Amino acid sequence: MAAVDEDLRERVLAAHRAILAAGLVTLTFGNASAVDRAAGVMAIKPSGVPYEALDAEAMVLVELASGDVVAGAYSPSSDAPSHLVLYRRFEALGGIVHTHSPYATAWAQAGRELPCLGTTHADHFDGPVPVTRQLRVDELEGAYEESTGEVIVEAIERRGADPLDLPAVLVRSHGPFAWGAGIEQAVENAVALEAVAALAFRTLALSPAAPELDAALRGRHFRRKHGPGAYYGQP
Amino acid sequence: MAAVDEDLRERVLAAHRAILAAGLVTLTFGNASAVDRAAGVMAIKPSGVPYEALDAEAMVLVELASGDVVAGAYSPSSDAPSHLVLYRRFEALGGIVHTHSPYATAWAQAGRELPCLGTTHADHFDGPVPVTRQLRVDELEGAYEESTGEVIVEAIERRGADPLDLPAVLVRSHGPFAWGAGIEQAVENAVALEAVAALAFRTLALSPAAPELDAALRGRHFRRKHGPGAYYGQP
Amino acid sequence: MAAVDEDLRERVLAAHRAILAAGLVTLTFGNASAVDRAAGVMAIKPSGVPYEALDAEAMVLVELASGDVVAGAYSPSSDAPSHLVLYRRFEALGGIVHTHSPYATAWAQAGRELPCLGTTHADHFDGPVPVTRQLRVDELEGAYEESTGEVIVEAIERRGADPLDLPAVLVRSHGPFAWGAGIEQAVENAVALEAVAALAFRTLALSPAAPELDAALRGRHFRRKHGPGAYYGQP
Amino acid sequence: MAAVDEDLRERVLAAHRAILAAGLVTLTFGNASAVDRAAGVMAIKPSGVPYEALDAEAMVLVELASGDVVAGAYSPSSDAPSHLVLYRRFEALGGIVHTHSPYATAWAQAGRELPCLGTTHADHFDGPVPVTRQLRVDELEGAYEESTGEVIVEAIERRGADPLDLPAVLVRSHGPFAWGAGIEQAVENAVALEAVAALAFRTLALSPAAPELDAALRGRHFRRKHGPGAYYGQP
Repeated sequence: MAAVDEDLRERVLAAHRAILAAGLVTLTFGNASAVDRAAGVMAIKPSGVPYEALDAEAMVLVELASGDVVAGAYSPSSDAPSHLVLYRRFEALGGIVHTHSPYATAWAQAGRELPCLGTTHADHFDGPVPVTRQLRVDELEGAYEESTGEVIVEAIERRGADPLDLPAVLVRSHGPFAWGAGIEQAVENAVALEAVAALAFRTLALSPAAPELDAALRGRHFRRKHGPGAYYGQP
Repeated sequence: MAAVDEDLRERVLAAHRAILAAGLVTLTFGNASAVDRAAGVMAIKPSGVPYEALDAEAMVLVELASGDVVAGAYSPSSDAPSHLVLYRRFEALGGIVHTHSPYATAWAQAGRELPCLGTTHADHFDGPVPVTRQLRVDELEGAYEESTGEVIVEAIERRGADPLDLPAVLVRSHGPFAWGAGIEQAVENAVALEAVAALAFRTLALSPAAPELDAALRGRHFRRKHGPGAYYGQP
Repeated sequence: MAAVDEDLRERVLAAHRAILAAGLVTLTFGNASAVDRAAGVMAIKPSGVPYEALDAEAMVLVELASGDVVAGAYSPSSDAPSHLVLYRRFEALGGIVHTHSPYATAWAQAGRELPCLGTTHADHFDGPVPVTRQLRVDELEGAYEESTGEVIVEAIERRGADPLDLPAVLVRSHGPFAWGAGIEQAVENAVALEAVAALAFRTLALSPAAPELDAALRGRHFRRKHGPGAYYGQP
Repeated sequence: MAAVDEDLRERVLAAHRAILAAGLVTLTFGNASAVDRAAGVMAIKPSGVPYEALDAEAMVLVELASGDVVAGAYSPSSDAPSHLVLYRRFEALGGIVHTHSPYATAWAQAGRELPCLGTTHADHFDGPVPVTRQLRVDELEGAYEESTGEVIVEAIERRGADPLDLPAVLVRSHGPFAWGAGIEQAVENAVALEAVAALAFRTLALSPAAPELDAALRGRHFRRKHGPGAYYGQP
């Protein structure tokens, strides 16, 4: 195993602090991870430890291929197998953030995909954010957390999307997973997802038949920020 | 009477600070208590004192059996008799938190039990959180606070539940009571209850017919955190 | 004129800080006042000065009988005449708080009285909080602010209530006025009004036909805190 | 070119801090600008830079006539062309604030103009806040940001309004733009717009047929604060 990037655990700690400050998590809900592809290792939150008590050392290193803990005094998040499934299937992912944030989780509990109703959504997600199918009883009773990862993969592949163009999924009856090329982008996408979930909630309360954003406008906004023609941000 | 645990009042103070910081209480709404079973004593908030003015000394010690104040310069919370009824009936309870929190109280005022619509709920409560029956006029006009305790007990026993598996009840037209093996768990359950009450409010706004969580998934989540097969948190 | 109580302006300043901290006001919305009956003087917020810039000296002293400014470098709140009408009509009032708070103002704009749906409401208001009638064009175009005070008085008198038992009114299309025996109680009532306005909003969303609190329970709660048989708080 | 006002960038920085503190923006959403008419220059947020990382030097100076950057190390906000269209068409504008604030953006996404339902609205906006028409495909695919500015101008001119009497527009499917005689007034109007968007959201939830404010009352409130007969604030 190559040496693990020195910053990996610090970046995962910073992500946890950011999602706490953004109001996306409370108590011990949620978890974030980042991967070091060269070392074949993921750093993730320890299970059940309050956010206020976390430090970089507390982050658990887990081998990507085997799922074994390779360093850390704690047990990893019980959701670690879901993260591993996503990192293994989608090579482009560098970080994953799972929360029970107030509005995105409501959409997940309602079993509704999150429609793209405005440019804030289109700036981050190139289409509606999908909701996973219900788990079968054998999945629930077996390797539950792996199965959660599998249905996320299914939801992205069913859409035929590049996972970095559609960097979030709502796990039905559970809550959102967001990701990015790095953990910093995963945090940004988790924050944006919650903002657009709240906007969409209010939009449909005001206008239950509000139309989805025109595809041309959606593409224009997504491409302002993403891909070769992007002109948002600094060169 | 055995000597009362030295930390008891400090822990009750910390609980009040925690529910204030979590936004569950304002003005002088709500109260928390913890019990020292060996000493036969409960420590509880003084009545009508603002949260900002509380210190450990202000917490009132009340004898569990008689309801008499055994130490403290203040009168205990007017809801103290409700707490005593719960401690006497349910031996497993170590702490109780009563709030008028924004969403759980709305469910109580609506007279609706809180359905289990997602895994956040199932992580803490093994089924819908019940709402008490309406008090009769003789109960209202007599020992009102004791009667409040009695209808909470009724709501748990009607469900046939272990009170630590269903650690909260909504008192109709009033607000939530939550509890735990210790006051720290009671605070956690009060915070979780408010979070799931808010999630359920938004879920039903998005999807009025949202189904309750499948019993298999609910059991899986509750058992991840509770009982002999639990694997959430640190060993 | 007797000497004005030294603390009067400090207490009015503290009230403004409290309603800002409680989230009841933003920008230059709202205003609070307190009266010194012996001196025949009211202290009130200067008009249009941001909350952050207020100090005790900025509070304007206005003679109760004439409405003339008797001390202060600023012009008084444009709503000062509404306050004067209330102080003149109701001798028991010692302080008044007017806000545009998020939920109470929504009820005022909806032109709906605030129903008593739970014990939190009954702890502070002995019945539904009334909404004023619409102003006539001659009232609007004439002494608008005095007329605002007059319709508040009408709303209380139409109910036959003691103003300290029903210490708030919603001014239609405008926002809430709350009061108390002192300005500290007026602040408490303004905070409680906003809390119960939010609770009632959510309660009716969950259960549009939620019944008003039983009169016996409402009386029980109000009398726990108010009047000769009160047993809430410290003796 | 005349020397640019020394304070211009400091004032634009202060505006960004104010809208962040007021909860109107998150991540890199939104942008504010101010104009120096004598110098023919606008100062605006750099594109995609987080609010926490902004300082006065980071603000980009753009020539009003040409749209060229005349000073600054960064690229200007991608929305800069929308701001330029507004400054060129409306001579009275001194500052512009664009946000994706939680409630105003929901109205924009719902494609509904914001009705005037109360005096808080009338204190700032002399009539409903309009929503722009949908952009045509050629506008979307061409000079998108200029077209956004054009439809804002159209919405104000269609109403026949003085832009300082109606200092905000909702851009359909996007979010609000607010402005003022100076950037400080633009910030105040953006904050007020979000407050009244939230109030109107709740008002219609309570009373879907709530009437618009009577024109006489609306005029009375607007004229209390604006124009030759204003008597709100300090002389």
